[in-house]
Amino acid sequence: MDLKQIAKDTSKTVISYLTYQALRTVLAQLSETDPPQAMWLHRFSSQDKIQDGEAYLKALFQERKDLGFRILTVREHLAIEVCDFLPEMVRTGIQQANTEHRREQLEQITLLDTNVASNYPEQPEEG
Amino acid sequence: MDLKQIAKDTSKTVISYLTYQALRTVLAQLSETDPPQAMWLHRFSSQDKIQDGEAYLKALFQERKDLGFRILTVREHLAIEVCDFLPEMVRTGIQQANTEHRREQLEQITLLDTNVASNYPEQPEEG
Repeated sequence: MDLKQIAKDTSKTVISYLTYQALRTVLAQLSETDPPQAMWLHRFSSQDKIQDGEAYLKALFQERKDLGFRILTVREHLAIEVCDFLPEMVRTGIQQANTEHRREQLEQITLLDTNVASNYPEQPEEG
Repeated sequence: MDLKQIAKDTSKTVISYLTYQALRTVLAQLSETDPPQAMWLHRFSSQDKIQDGEAYLKALFQERKDLGFRILTVREHLAIEVCDFLPEMVRTGIQQANTEHRREQLEQITLLDTNVASNYPEQPEEG
């Protein structure tokens, strides 16, 4: 288990995800102030393209530098606002979800035991 | 911009990603100790299924409880080891990538200016 590599890959995933959230923010702003631009950006930003945040931005800069710069600014802001909460939220989220999965499994085992017990009730002792 | 919702969605993305990394870790361990089981788990865990970590685990528990419990344990361990490094790594990563995009754009503008200047050289004054 290469923890350093896993941390690096996880941080890359978060960066791409924040780029996607920055795009969504800019789309919401534009749909208020400039619907045709919002439409253009929406069409440009397919699900496929946005999977790799840096490649997406490179492609966007080729077409519309102003929108590229705008997404850079928003994702930097998001990173500053959101990142500090992540460690606690992720740890707690995983602990809660794990507890839930374990509880469900325990419940199924208990249910199974009860069924087995009711199918094979204790025989009355013969006198 | 709903920062609270964005933080929540980002943490969900990290949890699913760590579940995927936990699966990869278990796959690597099994391919050393029990190749047929590794093969089974690999076949079971398509790219599609693993997008939503909790749904994936629910499905896995239906088939192989032991492997389900194993992935829970590994992802909890990964969360503890990796999460504290994320804020700094993500912030620095975004700042560096943004600087790189801005530098490239500046370079292109400078290149453009140079080309324009060489296409329209200063005319010699007529004497």
